[in-house]
Amino acid sequence: MTVSYDGTNYSGFQSQQNAKTVQDEIEKVLRRMHKGNEVKIFASGRTDASVHAKGQVFHFDSPLDIAISRWDWAIQSQLPRDISIINVVEVAQEFHARYDVVSKEYRYYIQTDRVIDVFRRNYSFHYPFPLNVEKMKVAAKYLEGTHDFTSFCSTKTAHTNKVRTIYLIEINERNKELEVRFVGNGFLYNMVRIIIGTLLDVGRGKRDHEDILPILESKNRQRAGKTAPGHGLFLWEVNYNN
Amino acid sequence: MTVSYDGTNYSGFQSQQNAKTVQDEIEKVLRRMHKGNEVKIFASGRTDASVHAKGQVFHFDSPLDIAISRWDWAIQSQLPRDISIINVVEVAQEFHARYDVVSKEYRYYIQTDRVIDVFRRNYSFHYPFPLNVEKMKVAAKYLEGTHDFTSFCSTKTAHTNKVRTIYLIEINERNKELEVRFVGNGFLYNMVRIIIGTLLDVGRGKRDHEDILPILESKNRQRAGKTAPGHGLFLWEVNYNN
Repeated sequence: MTVSYDGTNYSGFQSQQNAKTVQDEIEKVLRRMHKGNEVKIFASGRTDASVHAKGQVFHFDSPLDIAISRWDWAIQSQLPRDISIINVVEVAQEFHARYDVVSKEYRYYIQTDRVIDVFRRNYSFHYPFPLNVEKMKVAAKYLEGTHDFTSFCSTKTAHTNKVRTIYLIEINERNKELEVRFVGNGFLYNMVRIIIGTLLDVGRGKRDHEDILPILESKNRQRAGKTAPGHGLFLWEVNYNN
Repeated sequence: MTVSYDGTNYSGFQSQQNAKTVQDEIEKVLRRMHKGNEVKIFASGRTDASVHAKGQVFHFDSPLDIAISRWDWAIQSQLPRDISIINVVEVAQEFHARYDVVSKEYRYYIQTDRVIDVFRRNYSFHYPFPLNVEKMKVAAKYLEGTHDFTSFCSTKTAHTNKVRTIYLIEINERNKELEVRFVGNGFLYNMVRIIIGTLLDVGRGKRDHEDILPILESKNRQRAGKTAPGHGLFLWEVNYNN
């Protein structure tokens, strides 16, 4: 299933103790549909508190005899208004929403106007400073390709292999808002948000675009910029073969 | 002052008993700035519960010796995150934000896709039905101009003169969302929302665009369509001479 959610009122996607999560909301509905039996869902990955999704993907097994075209509404009608099922497909038993990911797209939004747009306050990071966007674009180019992203990964990560490939970082500017698109084969914990924090330093002139390669090579989280806030981030799309 | 607000969590603009309103939030800040003395603000008009504003305008009198360029931040820093001061100008003593209005623009948004866009759920009416937009455009043309809009006004109104001039009704379609722009010299209570309800009837084929003139002529609220929900409506702009 493909699901879109507004992360504002959740402590993230993945279940955790004493917190409201998107996974719990979906599993609660599935449990109801399965007469009280627990149904565990497996997503393409977690998203953090206040991070949004346009197209998160998850899979689960169900013995229920419901037509594919009916699942959508059966679940949707019981979900809160900030979670929406976008698409439902039947998959092979071997399919796994996390292990079969081929690529993912994230987008990060930054409002640069002095006055905040109240309608974007939960969906775009308000950063009211003049930015040199051309320099940010040059810096972004250094990050495309296959690199060890240790410097751009939270030290809290459990992954040991920090090599990932970023196919594209594209920066678009419109209506006093920057949209930064990231397409890659995988992203480490906080990776997009740390890259954004670093690109904003470049945009403000606190760092030079030539600093990017040394930061990558240092493999030291301390060398990169701050982690930008979660609410500007969207898991936009998850791609699989076929 | 020009103010933008997300109306989702308010019972409308204007103060009322036992309700959270935008006016109260602003007056609370002004009272604090004026050492506990009440400062009443006068807006271009009220907006209903869950209706938004991109550019509501209000005026007030103040004895404080604060530079015009400082008012903005002085107030903004104490307002909740869903209310934002966009602009501050000094006006002549005779100016009145309501009586001096020359024209206003409202916009109404309608999501027509089957699946709701969760990020637009509070800002666009979800109406997942096929619509004949061309017929809606023709119907809208009949409403432009100077008419007695009694049929398109809540019977709860206090106004006796129901003649208003609509300069423009423009319907734009993009990304499975309709934007309907209204520009006029004034709008009666619920007028935009009742027009939207009626245009949606035309779009679905429940009424014909040729029904519009007889509805106007009947001067009977019962003849027009339902009042569309408030959350799709934005007070977009208020215009004054100079």
